[in-house]
Amino acid sequence: ARPVRAPRGTQLHCKGWQQEAALRMLCNNLDPDNGENPDELIVYGGLGKAARNWTCFDAIVRTLLDLENDETLLVQSGKPVGVLKTHENAPRVLIANSNIVPQWANWDTFHELDKKGLIMYGQMTAGSWIYIGTQGILQGTYETFASLGLKHYNSDLTGKIVVTAGLGGMGGAQPLSITMANGVAICVEIDPDRIKKRLEKHYLDIEVSHLDKAIFKAKEAARIGKPLSIGLCANIGDILPAMIQKGFVPDVITDQTSAHDELNGYFPQGLSFKAALQLRKTDPERYKDMALNSMADHVRAILAIQKKGAVAFDYGNNLRAQAMKRGVDNAMDYPGFVPAYIRELFCQGEGPFRWAALSGDPEDIKVTDRELVKLFPEKTKMINWLKMAGEKVEHMGLPTRICWLGYGEREKAGKLFNDLVRDKKVKAPIVIGRDHLDCGSVASPYRETEAMKDGSDVVADWALLNCMSNVASGATWVSFHDGGGVGIGYALHAGQVTVADGTLAAEKRVTMVLRNDPATGIIRHADAGYETAIDVANTKGVKLPMINMH
Amino acid sequence: ARPVRAPRGTQLHCKGWQQEAALRMLCNNLDPDNGENPDELIVYGGLGKAARNWTCFDAIVRTLLDLENDETLLVQSGKPVGVLKTHENAPRVLIANSNIVPQWANWDTFHELDKKGLIMYGQMTAGSWIYIGTQGILQGTYETFASLGLKHYNSDLTGKIVVTAGLGGMGGAQPLSITMANGVAICVEIDPDRIKKRLEKHYLDIEVSHLDKAIFKAKEAARIGKPLSIGLCANIGDILPAMIQKGFVPDVITDQTSAHDELNGYFPQGLSFKAALQLRKTDPERYKDMALNSMADHVRAILAIQKKGAVAFDYGNNLRAQAMKRGVDNAMDYPGFVPAYIRELFCQGEGPFRWAALSGDPEDIKVTDRELVKLFPEKTKMINWLKMAGEKVEHMGLPTRICWLGYGEREKAGKLFNDLVRDKKVKAPIVIGRDHLDCGSVASPYRETEAMKDGSDVVADWALLNCMSNVASGATWVSFHDGGGVGIGYALHAGQVTVADGTLAAEKRVTMVLRNDPATGIIRHADAGYETAIDVANTKGVKLPMINMH
Ligand SMILES: NC(=O)c1ccc[n+]([C@@H]2O[C@H](COP(=O)([O-])OP(=O)(O)OC[C@H]3O[C@@H](n4cnc5c(N)ncnc54)[C@H](O)[C@@H]3O)[C@@H](O)[C@H]2O)c1
Ligand SMILES: NC(=O)c1ccc[n+]([C@@H]2O[C@H](COP(=O)([O-])OP(=O)(O)OC[C@H]3O[C@@H](n4cnc5c(N)ncnc54)[C@H](O)[C@@H]3O)[C@@H](O)[C@H]2O)c1
Repeated sequence: ARPVRAPRGTQLHCKGWQQEAALRMLCNNLDPDNGENPDELIVYGGLGKAARNWTCFDAIVRTLLDLENDETLLVQSGKPVGVLKTHENAPRVLIANSNIVPQWANWDTFHELDKKGLIMYGQMTAGSWIYIGTQGILQGTYETFASLGLKHYNSDLTGKIVVTAGLGGMGGAQPLSITMANGVAICVEIDPDRIKKRLEKHYLDIEVSHLDKAIFKAKEAARIGKPLSIGLCANIGDILPAMIQKGFVPDVITDQTSAHDELNGYFPQGLSFKAALQLRKTDPERYKDMALNSMADHVRAILAIQKKGAVAFDYGNNLRAQAMKRGVDNAMDYPGFVPAYIRELFCQGEGPFRWAALSGDPEDIKVTDRELVKLFPEKTKMINWLKMAGEKVEHMGLPTRICWLGYGEREKAGKLFNDLVRDKKVKAPIVIGRDHLDCGSVASPYRETEAMKDGSDVVADWALLNCMSNVASGATWVSFHDGGGVGIGYALHAGQVTVADGTLAAEKRVTMVLRNDPATGIIRHADAGYETAIDVANTKGVKLPMINMH
Repeated sequence: ARPVRAPRGTQLHCKGWQQEAALRMLCNNLDPDNGENPDELIVYGGLGKAARNWTCFDAIVRTLLDLENDETLLVQSGKPVGVLKTHENAPRVLIANSNIVPQWANWDTFHELDKKGLIMYGQMTAGSWIYIGTQGILQGTYETFASLGLKHYNSDLTGKIVVTAGLGGMGGAQPLSITMANGVAICVEIDPDRIKKRLEKHYLDIEVSHLDKAIFKAKEAARIGKPLSIGLCANIGDILPAMIQKGFVPDVITDQTSAHDELNGYFPQGLSFKAALQLRKTDPERYKDMALNSMADHVRAILAIQKKGAVAFDYGNNLRAQAMKRGVDNAMDYPGFVPAYIRELFCQGEGPFRWAALSGDPEDIKVTDRELVKLFPEKTKMINWLKMAGEKVEHMGLPTRICWLGYGEREKAGKLFNDLVRDKKVKAPIVIGRDHLDCGSVASPYRETEAMKDGSDVVADWALLNCMSNVASGATWVSFHDGGGVGIGYALHAGQVTVADGTLAAEKRVTMVLRNDPATGIIRHADAGYETAIDVANTKGVKLPMINMH
């Protein structure tokens, strides 16, 4: 329990930039400006942690400071357990978090193991040291709402009202994303501190104290086509029935409470915020039961609002599956955001490409923004995003940027960044990574792989092949997790982060990783029968033995 | 459906020995002399296959023939799905078999996916192309029975009678292992062809037609201390109650039917062999129900025999867990073979080290046997095994050898083999691999990781770290599977195979893999608190950040 902040500047503390990058990004995940609850080592998404405990954190730091350029540190659920002699082009860190033998992969077993100090929840980018604050999800959320607008209204969200809940680590990106798409947002959040934080960071425009006021303000803004985000401190379980009763139907309804975790992530209807926090400790079983019942009502309300004409979609928090446990058999009547708005991008190898300036200097990110625009002058959507991000996104912790890039583009960007480091256009090396939510890296039947064309939603071989490919290609660190947004047992996924330090060796590694990593996405979607993926493979030369070879 | 046999000799068909080795070992898994049912591509263990179907097999072969020395083939559940450009020290093949998102990782989902052609059961060494016939398990089985003798009788099995069932791909090793330990075996097997096959291969000494005769012969041999193995064609579900009724109590009781697979692996009591095969097709649900009920009775009988004084242990086929599904709550009253007889070896990094002579010449294996004896003159148990194996083990497919070696020893043996290839003491390169059942590679709470000291039986991070370490170290092919002997959802495990082709590059890869692979076993057991593992780490220099560094 102490404030941790990544070292900045060009001075090495470790024996190489790869180890240094792991060290800085681990610290950055726990920076109070970045992570949600650093005292408990929690980065985001309910329980997602960067290290198992502070003793383990210290040991990771010590080991990274010592680690040779031909050694590899093994991290098991946030604990450093071994150091192997490997070689210079092997990863410096290999990470496995929250993986449990499938038959036992559920929350009860997880919490038992957690109590014994044997495991840690890695979420997606918490335990893999590439969380970049709400910007990380901001871009994805923006892409989702922009794509929703295009699909349903053939425009952006001008004049449309979105209702959602949850302003946590990821959900906090919703109000700004929606206003970036020119829409109006009513965001319900039970924790007053979360609302305060989003107001301070300018992710949220205003706060109101009553539902009537929220609806009034929203309608007013929508009528004149003004973007506006409105925070309302309440339980969504109270708000939706009230909306229905008042006859108010928003244009879009979704949710980003941490519904995947019925104990630590979701507040049951009928309890005050404080009473709920209390009950979590005094009677967790009762709490979980109440939370699941509330989720069932929550989904029933969303379905009712959908019936009245709203566009409803699930935002990857497992809310629908939780409601099904309490008998809401038609919970899947509204789609997940991936099949609805993201899959077509995955088929092109597009995914949440991101990078951080290890110098700590925001100017370095401006340089990368500018150079990317020059490299891809035809990508207008990306250019718009970079412009808005440059204006509206405050850096949280180390300066970072995210933008979705496709197969072929990522490796070009990687080479560009390495050149910028080599030519001293930026002050220190740049790390390049991505979310575990990517085209080839994840098996998650209620989110990324929901409703696959060939019915292969639950097949997890793909995530493992992605993981192994990233190790083989020489990523600086590679991670494999169970869990994430949809909870233990519901998803398996891999991550990679690679350092561009300006050397030729780094250029080789960076381009190889950034080619092969999205290539597994093309391969996975081509195998499932998506024409777009097969086209990309054919035009860009991704070798598919049973489709385009021989 | 055609006979497949690995190419022999020194002529390359592929562009390098690594690809050639993968090609030959894939073919070797399907050699009718080696695999159990090659027509269906089944290698062993119920459904364990080498390729998804013959079209996929052909495509794998074509792709391997084409594969460059800096390319990597991705295999998803026995189907070749992509080829990536990597580098010379990366694996040539990455394999993921039978992996399903945990919440869905069960037989019903597996069979559904199988029907859709989306998955394949990889078992342990079937889908990872390093099955070496019954010899593979022979050594492990021999070690187990030898270790059992030592523990319970402070000697070998002279004068002791073992009762078991199942003479399949793995179970077929039981009679010879038991007689190698000088004991007497009664082996019950319902499939007459399996008995015939074991008699032909001299793994089984005689067959008798009635239980009375089996008991008589067994007692006679035991009395004079003569090793003898007796086959009895029957359902074990009929035999055990009859034994109890006759008042016959063996010294040891175990079982190696494919109980992990209630549809394709276990024959329910009360049906003839043929009637059972019929019912599998006409009414699989009824079949499964009957099989599970039989297993419950089977375990009850074992428990009863244990109560009468027999040593009982589970041989890794999930029989106890299956019986628990039908209410046998005390099924775990007899231990698994790993905590009882194997764990202490795992703590020393010992595991089923194995190799194959790609020349196809048995003489090459004799050379390796001789040289190993010279390299480790102090390892008398190993020397005895190599002598017996040299005399009694017929090669099935390519000539192979297995012997358990520990941390430090494996890399020495790897270097030795590479030297032998370089110096042309053997005619062609040698591939070195192991079973997925090894000290660091597997998470399997009903088998390899049953009853871990710290309660971490179900934590699967370890298997993933092993997998990633093998990729990072440059193994020729690396595999990751769900399933194996205990069935889908009950185990996750990794495998590696590496080619010694006599080059310096191969020496580096082979020694790195053979050091780091068992190192993860030392690390895993040290973290769980096993003193032996910590001692080995301290004396042999395995770096443990929170135990012996800083
Ligand atoms: N695209 C993605 O990858 C993706 C996207 C979005 C969300 N998710 C998932 O969405 C969820 C949210 O993530 P997060 O990081 O923001 O989690 P978080 O735990 O940081 O935030 C959740 C917020 O919801 C609030 N909340 C909970 N129950 C509530 C209720 N009944 N009424 C009002 N507010 C309530 C909490 O106070 C908290 O602020 C997670 O399940 C996450 O995994 C994933
Ligand atoms: N050490 C290990 O790694 C290890 C060790 C042993 C066994 N196992 C497990 O043991 C099991 C056996 O493996 P295998 O490869 O020999 O399988 P297999 O399917 O090739 O053979 C099983 C045999 O059992 C026979 N059988 C089934 N039900 C029977 C019954 N009721 N009565 C008599 N015979 C019956 C079948 O006819 C078959 O010959 C598997 O579950 C395997 O995974 C693993």
